[in-house]
Amino acid sequence: MLNSFDQKKQKILQEIQSDDLDLSPKGTIDELCIPIINLINSNDDMVTTSSCSGRVSVYLEGTKSNRAVVSKGNHGRWLFVTHEPHDLKDWTSKINFVYTSSFPDPNARLILYKFEPLILHVKCRNLETANKLYQVAMNNGFRESGIGSNFNVAIRISIKLDIPIGYKSPKDEEFEEDILNLFVTKDYIKYIDQLSLERFEENSKKLNQLYKAIEKDLSNGTVLTIKTNKPNWESKEERRRRMVKEGLKRQEELRELKQDQIQ
Amino acid sequence: MLNSFDQKKQKILQEIQSDDLDLSPKGTIDELCIPIINLINSNDDMVTTSSCSGRVSVYLEGTKSNRAVVSKGNHGRWLFVTHEPHDLKDWTSKINFVYTSSFPDPNARLILYKFEPLILHVKCRNLETANKLYQVAMNNGFRESGIGSNFNVAIRISIKLDIPIGYKSPKDEEFEEDILNLFVTKDYIKYIDQLSLERFEENSKKLNQLYKAIEKDLSNGTVLTIKTNKPNWESKEERRRRMVKEGLKRQEELRELKQDQIQ
Repeated sequence: MLNSFDQKKQKILQEIQSDDLDLSPKGTIDELCIPIINLINSNDDMVTTSSCSGRVSVYLEGTKSNRAVVSKGNHGRWLFVTHEPHDLKDWTSKINFVYTSSFPDPNARLILYKFEPLILHVKCRNLETANKLYQVAMNNGFRESGIGSNFNVAIRISIKLDIPIGYKSPKDEEFEEDILNLFVTKDYIKYIDQLSLERFEENSKKLNQLYKAIEKDLSNGTVLTIKTNKPNWESKEERRRRMVKEGLKRQEELRELKQDQIQ
Repeated sequence: MLNSFDQKKQKILQEIQSDDLDLSPKGTIDELCIPIINLINSNDDMVTTSSCSGRVSVYLEGTKSNRAVVSKGNHGRWLFVTHEPHDLKDWTSKINFVYTSSFPDPNARLILYKFEPLILHVKCRNLETANKLYQVAMNNGFRESGIGSNFNVAIRISIKLDIPIGYKSPKDEEFEEDILNLFVTKDYIKYIDQLSLERFEENSKKLNQLYKAIEKDLSNGTVLTIKTNKPNWESKEERRRRMVKEGLKRQEELRELKQDQIQ
């Protein structure tokens, strides 16, 4: 008979290994996180519950009916999300932006450009393990980490960008489309994309550093390779292509869903 | 004989009540935090160890010799910091900025504009109290909170801004001064100042909400008013004026210290 932590861990590992897409907009586990997820899960006393390897996102805020700052509900939606540095090349040309030098009134729905670094959530069996993992994270620069309830450790770092770049104005009557205005220049976007590339690089360095530290201080000696997402008859390239395809499909579905909600 | 938590708490409360300035650039406890600090410290099992009520800061990064992203050492310095919304009016005119439409090379020292919300650190006597405080914080929207080692709870929220606005170019030989370039427009700065004002407002709402929730769930029945910073022969207005004066003096000293380090 397994105890409650072991049951939970078994269930999570089954989900990771199944074909089911997860609940993120991308729908799959980030490639870059797979080694550290395997490492953590090979320790009997820990299991990863969610992860993001770092991303750039461009978000159109929801309506501010409730006056909250950065409203995530009320029809907010992603205009662009990527976990891949190479996607940053010329992403603005895929969206119908209008460049402007005017600024909106306070109720306008803002467009925010964000760099969000690695985040990992790990459920631990007991306080001792949670404390150890927390200390390893803090000692390796993940200074915004913390232990939550039930020995859940959040591993967080603060290399962020959070930049208002534009706003939505009322629909164009002729084309029936949202008008998405940018009040920063093309050159400014190009420059912050460059900064994001640097941050992606720094982020992946920190991830490697964390991997090594966990391997040294928290592995049980042998690191098991728990397979994620797919049985191993798939080649790495086949798997990559499938994941991209599934991710795009999922994004498309989400976009349609969001569009339906807006209309 | 007091146990170790009680000794630590006694020491911290003495420091808060003493004339000594704290180690922040401002040098004093933020006015807005004093009620919640009093409330938390009136609970026998908790003591506040640091706090910031929320601020706007404009930071000139240090040199990037070690290739770290957002270097805080290596001659980095604050160009402007305020905890007071009304200070946001026309702060740029006090700094000798040059507006430009050109962008620097990757090694340039960036100027970053940040809104940083309320953060509170609270040391708890035991895990039970730490868990309770953590839950109250999470339930009231402080979603980046966490428990650290030794039952230290960090209460954090994610209403941030983190915006590159310019860069430093080499000293002007004639004036022997740093040239501080802004690659965003005056109107853009005015607009993000406006967003910061909204965030200050939201921040203070969330602080009030947290105060009420702690009062309801974590106060021991009677809230003691522990006096902070000064004996009570000083009127509130006298105290305010003194704190402003001391804060400015401290800022000046820090600036001189930083200047010395740069030269």
